Amino acid sequence: MSKTIEFSADDIPRTHPQLPRTLYWEGGADGQLALLDQTRLPAEVVTLPCRDAATVWEAIKMLRVRGAPAIGVAAAYGLCLGTREHCDAPRDQFLTAVDEVADYLNGARPTAVNLAWALRRVTAVAKETEGDGPVLWARMLSEAHAIAREDAERCRQIGEHGAALIPEGGRVLTHCNAGALATVAYGTALSPMYIAHEQGRRFSVFADETRPLLQGARLTAFELAASGIDVTVLCDGVGASLMQAREIDLVVVGADRIAANGDTANKIGTYSLAVAARHHGIPFYVAAPSSTFDLSVANGGQIPIEQRSDDEVRRGFGTETVAGTARCLNPAFDVTPAALITGIITEIGLLEPVTAERISGFFGSGG
Amino acid sequence: MSKTIEFSADDIPRTHPQLPRTLYWEGGADGQLALLDQTRLPAEVVTLPCRDAATVWEAIKMLRVRGAPAIGVAAAYGLCLGTREHCDAPRDQFLTAVDEVADYLNGARPTAVNLAWALRRVTAVAKETEGDGPVLWARMLSEAHAIAREDAERCRQIGEHGAALIPEGGRVLTHCNAGALATVAYGTALSPMYIAHEQGRRFSVFADETRPLLQGARLTAFELAASGIDVTVLCDGVGASLMQAREIDLVVVGADRIAANGDTANKIGTYSLAVAARHHGIPFYVAAPSSTFDLSVANGGQIPIEQRSDDEVRRGFGTETVAGTARCLNPAFDVTPAALITGIITEIGLLEPVTAERISGFFGSGG
Repeated sequence: MSKTIEFSADDIPRTHPQLPRTLYWEGGADGQLALLDQTRLPAEVVTLPCRDAATVWEAIKMLRVRGAPAIGVAAAYGLCLGTREHCDAPRDQFLTAVDEVADYLNGARPTAVNLAWALRRVTAVAKETEGDGPVLWARMLSEAHAIAREDAERCRQIGEHGAALIPEGGRVLTHCNAGALATVAYGTALSPMYIAHEQGRRFSVFADETRPLLQGARLTAFELAASGIDVTVLCDGVGASLMQAREIDLVVVGADRIAANGDTANKIGTYSLAVAARHHGIPFYVAAPSSTFDLSVANGGQIPIEQRSDDEVRRGFGTETVAGTARCLNPAFDVTPAALITGIITEIGLLEPVTAERISGFFGSGG
Repeated sequence: MSKTIEFSADDIPRTHPQLPRTLYWEGGADGQLALLDQTRLPAEVVTLPCRDAATVWEAIKMLRVRGAPAIGVAAAYGLCLGTREHCDAPRDQFLTAVDEVADYLNGARPTAVNLAWALRRVTAVAKETEGDGPVLWARMLSEAHAIAREDAERCRQIGEHGAALIPEGGRVLTHCNAGALATVAYGTALSPMYIAHEQGRRFSVFADETRPLLQGARLTAFELAASGIDVTVLCDGVGASLMQAREIDLVVVGADRIAANGDTANKIGTYSLAVAARHHGIPFYVAAPSSTFDLSVANGGQIPIEQRSDDEVRRGFGTETVAGTARCLNPAFDVTPAALITGIITEIGLLEPVTAERISGFFGSGG
C-alpha cells in the first residue's frame, strides 16, 4: 500500500507549467480527485475537489470533465472515492460495493467507451487481488494512477511523433478540442503543438470555435493561450478561406473512432476541413491513440453518427435563435474518408499513407 | 401629388401572404414607414413605425433593417420623412434640408453602397423637379416608392429565372440571409425558392446558421418557415457532410459583389461550401441582381475583405466564450472564384458558364 500512498500528481507529466491540470489525485489514501471544471472555462479557472462518487458522477454528467480519456480517468478515481468508506467491510461486501459504485458511475454517460473500460479495469484488479478491503482498495487506487499515467505518456508520445510535422513559423488549423483538457495531459491533436513549443519552435494555431458546443473557442484557445502558444479563434467556415489565402500549412484534428480502412469519425465540421485541405493541397493529419482504431469496423459507412438535441443549435446562444417552426439537424460527428487523410499520428508512430493494408500491418494483425 | 398619395403597399408584390413585409410605406403623404425589426426575430415579430429620419437612422445603424437593397429603400423613405416638416419652407431652404437629411442618413452605415445610391437618387429628383416644397416632396416620395417597387420586381425576376433549377423533391443548401428580409420582397438567393413554392413544387431547404451573426438561423429560417417552405437549420460546417451523404442537390447563395470575371464576394463561409460542392459534383449557384456586378474590379483578388470586430466571435453567445489572451479573426466575407460557380442567376437571366467573356457579353459592354 505504501507505493500507492507515495504517488503524487508530479508522477504525471504536466502539459505546461502555466496550464492548470485537467484532473489529478491530490494526497495519499485519504486524498481526493481535483477536477478542472471545464463548464466554467474560459471565464473562470475553478478546480472542483471530489471526495465521493456522487461528485464525480455529476462532473461527468454535466461535462465538467469531458474527452474520452479524461472521463475514463475521472471514473477510475471516482470508483476509488466511492468505495473508500467500505474498506473495513469484509472482502465480499467490499467487492459488492465496487460493483455497485462502478454501475452507478457508468450511468453518468452511458455511451462513453473509455468510461466503461476504465471502470472494468479498476474493478478487475480489485477482484484479482488477494486480501481484504484496504489491500484491494490500495491496488485500485494504484490502477487508477496507472491509467492516468499511461494516458499522459501515450499523449506525449503522440506529440513526439507529430511535432516534426509543424515547421518553424508554421500555421496549424485544428477543430474542436482534442487537447490536454480532453486527456490527463498533452491531448492528441494538440500534443504535437505542445512538444513543438517545448522544442522552442514558433508557430501559430488557428482554432475553429466548433459549434454547437464551442469546444474550440472555450477549451482549445484557453489551453493553448495559457501555455503561451499563439492561438486565433475562427468561426467554423473561415478555415477554407484561410487555406485559399495560403495562410494554413497543415490541419491536425483528433478522432473519436477510426475504422480498419482509416476512415475517421470526429467532431462535426472535420470533414469540411478535410475537403478544403485536399482542394488546396494542404496536409491533413489525424492524431489519436491506437485505442481509437476499431478494427471490427471495416469502413466509415459502418460508424453510427450520433444525432444530438436540437436545443444545442436552437438555443445555444442563451436565447432562441431559430424560428420555432424551422427544424434543426445536429449531428455530433462526421466521417472523413481515409483518402483525404495524409497521415494518422499515434503513440506508436506516424501511420502514412492511410490504407487498410498499412493499418493492418501497423497493428501486426490480420486487421 | 395625387399619384403619390394613391400609392399603396399593395403596389409592391408580397413574398408570401404569411410572411410579414420587410418594410413598406403606410398611408399617403402623411403616412409613415413600417419596418420589421429584424433584431427581434425570430422570437418576436415587431413592426417599427418610423415617422422621422432619426428613427430610420437608428434602425439602419442597429441593423433593425439590413441587406443592401432594404437599407437603400429605408433610407429613401427616411429622407422623405426627415424633410416632410420642411415642405412649407422656400424651395432653396427645402433643398438644403434634403441635403442635410441625406448626409445624416448616409452616416448610419457609411460603407453601405445602396444607402448612398438611394439617397442620391431621391435627392436628384428633388433638385430636377420644378416647383416648391410640397411638389418636390411628393416627387421624392414617388421616387422612394419606385425604388421599392423596382427592387421587388428585380428580385421576383431572379426567382423566375432560378426556380427551374430546383427540382421536385430537391434539397437546397443556402448560407446567410439573401432573402425577402434583405430586400423589399423575395430576396435574391431565396427568390427561386419562393417562386418554386408558388409553382407548387415541394422541396427542402437547409440553412447554415451563419456565424457570427446567425442570419441563417434567425432570418432565413424565419422567413422560409413563415412562408410554409420546409427548412432545417445547420451549424456551419455540417453542409459538407450532407453533401457526402448525397442529401444536397444544389447550393444557392447571394452575393455582395461580383468581379468582372465572376469571382464572387459573399458572407464568410460561402467559399467553404463552394469547395465542398465542387468536391461532390453538386451545382453551386449565386443569385444576385445585375447591380451587384462591379465590372471595374477585374477579379476577386481586388475585392477588399472587411474585418469585423472580435467581439462578434468572442462574445456572440451572451458570455465570453474565447479565452482572453487568445485572438479572434472575423472576416465578414470570402471570395469564391468563378471556376467554382456553376451559374449566376440575375434578373436578366441565368449566366452560365461564369467567365469574363460571358459576363462582358451579358452586359453588352467591353467589360
